[in-house]
Amino acid sequence: MTDLIDINGALVEGRSARLDPMDRGFTLGDAIFESLRVRDGRPEFAAEHLARLEAAARVLALVLPFGEDHVMDRIDRLIATSGMADAALRLTVSRGPAARGVAAPPAEHCRPTAVISLHPLPPARNAAVAAVTATVTRRNEHSPVSRIKATPYLDSIIALEEARSKGARDAVLLNTAGRVASACYANLFAVIDGDLVTPPLDDGPLPGITRAHLLAALGGAERSLTPEDLAHASEIFLTNSFGVRPVAVLDGRMLTPLPGAMTQKAQALVG
Amino acid sequence: MTDLIDINGALVEGRSARLDPMDRGFTLGDAIFESLRVRDGRPEFAAEHLARLEAAARVLALVLPFGEDHVMDRIDRLIATSGMADAALRLTVSRGPAARGVAAPPAEHCRPTAVISLHPLPPARNAAVAAVTATVTRRNEHSPVSRIKATPYLDSIIALEEARSKGARDAVLLNTAGRVASACYANLFAVIDGDLVTPPLDDGPLPGITRAHLLAALGGAERSLTPEDLAHASEIFLTNSFGVRPVAVLDGRMLTPLPGAMTQKAQALVG
Repeated sequence: MTDLIDINGALVEGRSARLDPMDRGFTLGDAIFESLRVRDGRPEFAAEHLARLEAAARVLALVLPFGEDHVMDRIDRLIATSGMADAALRLTVSRGPAARGVAAPPAEHCRPTAVISLHPLPPARNAAVAAVTATVTRRNEHSPVSRIKATPYLDSIIALEEARSKGARDAVLLNTAGRVASACYANLFAVIDGDLVTPPLDDGPLPGITRAHLLAALGGAERSLTPEDLAHASEIFLTNSFGVRPVAVLDGRMLTPLPGAMTQKAQALVG
Repeated sequence: MTDLIDINGALVEGRSARLDPMDRGFTLGDAIFESLRVRDGRPEFAAEHLARLEAAARVLALVLPFGEDHVMDRIDRLIATSGMADAALRLTVSRGPAARGVAAPPAEHCRPTAVISLHPLPPARNAAVAAVTATVTRRNEHSPVSRIKATPYLDSIIALEEARSKGARDAVLLNTAGRVASACYANLFAVIDGDLVTPPLDDGPLPGITRAHLLAALGGAERSLTPEDLAHASEIFLTNSFGVRPVAVLDGRMLTPLPGAMTQKAQALVG
């Protein structure tokens, strides 16, 4: 097992991998990414992740520096060469190095940067967490950036710091209208009066791939949720490509039994 | 004149300067910056810029990897060595390389990255521009990130693309309540019924250093502005550390005479 990274198609040792400091991904957060679970040597839901990446690139008028077949070959090569059969794979694409200035250069003048990296699976992927409702910030449902997986995660970073300062592990992010959007790096589901519900995309969550699968498999509904709705939920759980985390405590209220019946079904589906 | 960059205190040639691709500035937009004007070999308003950087670092619980004296020495050394006496200087500080994961590692485990670079002054720094009111996105006045100079500029990038597609050079960004916040990389001033006004910080503009100086020097007032207010303004101008750009056309309406009397005063002050 080696520590390899694919940068623009070149496999390099992690410790010698380097980016241009004038890359717009570093200077302006002008980049998008996907995080995939690698299971038994295969990237899960790769087609869905690549489709979401392509949709994000269209929002930013960023031309991806690879075709779908090409990047799949590179992903397979990195997994095979690294020997990490169960891992988190990250694919990041920035607009690449550019002269100073906010406006994006015309696509024909850009050399986007694509980085593919493998990481250990996150620990305790299905472990129960305590959460608080973030008070320091809100997700911006008025921005299309809330609906693409762009690299900037500062609102989540400061909300997680608020959670940590209150003894919790994650935070529920509200949107600017005060409705529930998501957790800091996961979609949020709740069971309310026996119904499985999750916020609609218009309320500002990321369109999660696990979210879509669970909605279809478990018969859930998209419904706007207030903090008061969550205060009456019998189950709350947080989903991403790596697991389903039951919320054991929200703003001091314990949710029991844990994990609830619906949460267990979701965990069985995500595996 | 050479193409030098200061990375963590080391002066390197721009073409050989390199960053770790796992730097959180690249992977998560977890970084802040300042852009200073260098005039006659000296960085303008350096104390104000460093104070704003320090305030931003506190919001993100990011410990700056230098003291004020130390970074001023590095800035002076870069300017002197480069021989660029009139330039744009950028100071970027990210939280540095880290393992995968959104939550910020404890400060004692972080090695922040500081990049100081010099660039040509932007062209046409005081030239009149056509602008449109952005419809694709809004600034999030509910997030403290709107009040710090963080690297992520995606909302501005997509608004500038909207402007370009409509034949304009800049865009007016509204906040989520529909009030005027700023332009894409400049504060906005307007003259309405003879009064000089600019949006208050609670409405989501960046706390610009030029904005503060002009407010004090010209006796302007902070006042919430609607798009309708701008439709009745006799002058609109956009300010940053590099100049004062009169808005010649906003959403198709011409503002004349150009530049207006107040705009000329602002240009004379910023120089």
